[in-house]
Amino acid sequence: MMNLKNKKKPVILVTNDDGITAPGIRHLIKLMKKLGDVVVVAPDKPQSGMGHAITIANPIRLEPADKHEHNKEYSCSGTPVDCVKLAVNKILHGKPDLLVSGINHGSNSSINVIYSGTMSAALEGAIESIPSIGFSMIDSSIDADLSKFDTYILAIAKNVLKKGLPNKICLNVNLPKLKTINGLRVCRQAHAYWADEYEMRKDPHQKKYYWLKGEFINNDKGCDTDEWALKNGYISVVPVEYDFTAHYAIEQLKELES
Amino acid sequence: MMNLKNKKKPVILVTNDDGITAPGIRHLIKLMKKLGDVVVVAPDKPQSGMGHAITIANPIRLEPADKHEHNKEYSCSGTPVDCVKLAVNKILHGKPDLLVSGINHGSNSSINVIYSGTMSAALEGAIESIPSIGFSMIDSSIDADLSKFDTYILAIAKNVLKKGLPNKICLNVNLPKLKTINGLRVCRQAHAYWADEYEMRKDPHQKKYYWLKGEFINNDKGCDTDEWALKNGYISVVPVEYDFTAHYAIEQLKELES
Repeated sequence: MMNLKNKKKPVILVTNDDGITAPGIRHLIKLMKKLGDVVVVAPDKPQSGMGHAITIANPIRLEPADKHEHNKEYSCSGTPVDCVKLAVNKILHGKPDLLVSGINHGSNSSINVIYSGTMSAALEGAIESIPSIGFSMIDSSIDADLSKFDTYILAIAKNVLKKGLPNKICLNVNLPKLKTINGLRVCRQAHAYWADEYEMRKDPHQKKYYWLKGEFINNDKGCDTDEWALKNGYISVVPVEYDFTAHYAIEQLKELES
Repeated sequence: MMNLKNKKKPVILVTNDDGITAPGIRHLIKLMKKLGDVVVVAPDKPQSGMGHAITIANPIRLEPADKHEHNKEYSCSGTPVDCVKLAVNKILHGKPDLLVSGINHGSNSSINVIYSGTMSAALEGAIESIPSIGFSMIDSSIDADLSKFDTYILAIAKNVLKKGLPNKICLNVNLPKLKTINGLRVCRQAHAYWADEYEMRKDPHQKKYYWLKGEFINNDKGCDTDEWALKNGYISVVPVEYDFTAHYAIEQLKELES
C-alpha cells in the first residue's frame, strides 16, 4: 500500500493485458523506473482481446507479486480494466500521476483499439482523469527487440507527465516493425476492419467448436492514419476518447423524436 | 443455416448480453418477429460487463437452441461480440438487414456504454456495416413491464430498417423507469462516471477477495444528455460511433511529432 501524500517522485501505474510476466510489461516497468515511483497491477494471465470488460459477477483476487521489493507489484485475477480500478481503489488509494499500459505484444492500431485490453486499461485511466498511455508494438514475437523504442517511449511519457493530456483523452501509441524508425506521427484511427473467419473443428466426442481467425483489411488510403504511419516506419500516436457519441449525427437523427 | 439470397422479409439478428433465456431478449424476439425473419445468436450465460471482449485464446461452442423451430436460435459460449461475428460468419453467411441487441436489464446510458456487452454487440454490428440498435431499460428487475415500450421499439426498428443509419454508427436506446413515457430524445452521452469501491472479504481459507461495487455520479448538467432525457421520462437515443479518435485533439498534440 502506497502513501501518495508525501511522495517526492511522480507515481506511475503500470499495467497490460498480456499478463504481469510478459516481456513487454517487464521492459516498460524498467523504463518507467527512470521517471518515477512505479507501482504494477497487472493480470495474472493473458487477457488479450478482453476489451473494456469488467468483472461484476465474480470476486477478484489481488496478490502481491514481489514480496522482496516493498509490495510494489500485484497480480490480479481480473481484466485489465479491473486492474486499473483496483490499483486506484485498493493499492494507491488515489490517482497516480501517470498510467502506462503495455508494451502490448501485437498491434492496437486502427479498429484493434476496440478489442484491446491494453488500450481499455488506458481508456479507463482517462475516465478516471489519469493521464494515460497505451503502448503496443506491431511485432508480436515474444523476443522482439524492445530497446530501440526506449528514447521515444521515455520522451512521450515525460511529455505527458509534464503537460498532462486534453480532458477525456488517452494516447494510443503503436511501435512500427521496420528496422529504422523515421519519427513520430500524431494520427487518426484508420478506417479498417477484420474480415473474420471461424475454423470449425470437432472434439474427440464429435461435437463442433470454432476458432476465431481473420484477415485485417485496410481500405483507408489516408496519409493521416495510424496504419499509414506504421507502414512508413513512424511511431503512431492516436488521441483516443471515451465519449462515443457521434455528435455530428445527432441533428440528422432528430426525426426520430416524438 | 439461413439462405439470405431468396429472402422475402428482412432478416433481423437478435442478440444480448444477459443470455438467451433472459426476459428482455425473449420480448425483443417476439417484437422483431412482427417486422421480419428473426435469427437469434445469444450467449448461453450472462455476459454483463463484458464490453467489447472477443474470445481469441479459447474455442467457442455454438449450439442450436430451438430444435423444433427450424434452427433459428443458437446459444453461444462466447461473448456478445463473438455472437455477432459467428452469426454473420457461420449462421447467416452474410449480413442481416438489422441487428438488435437487448433488451438489457439495466441502464447502458452515459459511460455504461463502454462496459456494456449489449452495446458492444451493436457496435460490432456497426463495424460490420449492419444497421444496429442496442436497447436497454433502466429498470433492471427481471419482471419489469416491457410491453409499455413496444410502440417505440417497433417504430425505431422500422425507421432503421427503412432508412438505415449514418456510416460507422449504431444507436444506444435506453428506456426510462418512469410510469409515463413523455416521448423520445436524440442525445449525447452524459459525462458521468462510476465512483468505484471494492468490498474486501475473506474466504474460508482466510485469503482476501474483492467485489466490485460503486456509485454512479453524474455532474453533467446539460439538458441534451441521455441522463437528462431518462430522468425526465424520455426514451434516450444516442448515436454511437466506433471511431475512437479524438479528432479535435490531433492538432494540439502535434508537438509530440519528430
